[in-house]
Amino acid sequence: MGKRTRSFCSQKLSFYMRLFENSLIFIEVHESEVPWLKVFIQEVKKEFSECSNAEKMMIFSALDIIEKKMLTYYQPEKINIASFGNMLPHVHWHISARFKEDSYFPEPMWGEVQRKGKLDLPSFKLFCQEVASDLEISL
Amino acid sequence: MGKRTRSFCSQKLSFYMRLFENSLIFIEVHESEVPWLKVFIQEVKKEFSECSNAEKMMIFSALDIIEKKMLTYYQPEKINIASFGNMLPHVHWHISARFKEDSYFPEPMWGEVQRKGKLDLPSFKLFCQEVASDLEISL
Repeated sequence: MGKRTRSFCSQKLSFYMRLFENSLIFIEVHESEVPWLKVFIQEVKKEFSECSNAEKMMIFSALDIIEKKMLTYYQPEKINIASFGNMLPHVHWHISARFKEDSYFPEPMWGEVQRKGKLDLPSFKLFCQEVASDLEISL
Repeated sequence: MGKRTRSFCSQKLSFYMRLFENSLIFIEVHESEVPWLKVFIQEVKKEFSECSNAEKMMIFSALDIIEKKMLTYYQPEKINIASFGNMLPHVHWHISARFKEDSYFPEPMWGEVQRKGKLDLPSFKLFCQEVASDLEISL
């Protein structure tokens, strides 16, 4: 419990707060104009192929749950998923919802700015609550 | 051994050649200064969560095999994996080997140029042959 009492977004939200956690992974919010979460493995490993099957499957399941929630909740143009770790060699995956009107579309969020983004999206706080609930139920 | 003859680029190889194919996925070469492959699903679907479990597992297995081969063959600084599809809404995953001396490191390959890349890598042609063989054996 307690996981939902952190009053996400409304009270000086830390954008690095942990949205979900179990023995294998934890999930954090990434501050951005688009809805963006990061899935980390608990143990520090550099490359994805070094992960155990259980860790790999847990990450894939989490990405699947997050993607489905992003699609139904935001109806975005596209979901983007990436794992780089060039600066932080600790396996983690980015997942974000992309919109034609965001600042970078159709470039990746690491690409060249295309425009001044104009997004009017449903509450990110509510999204976080709902996806945390989905993760709690399914993982 | 020919590992250092860089014959890949010299022989007008089609950089869009299909390296591997089965009933669920196909794998193509992406032209770049770094070793880079793309894993597509055969059926055209837009989002990864729309894929069947068999398609998802096949992609993950292919990425795992390619990553392991990239690590042993090139000993790169890091492996990068990404699935965007903002311009081509057909599920596909990028996987590339990154080096401190490449033009973008530590930025993603879609990011800002950091330097004029100076890479002297083992033969990409031989890498492709070896990874295709690994894929044939394991998938």
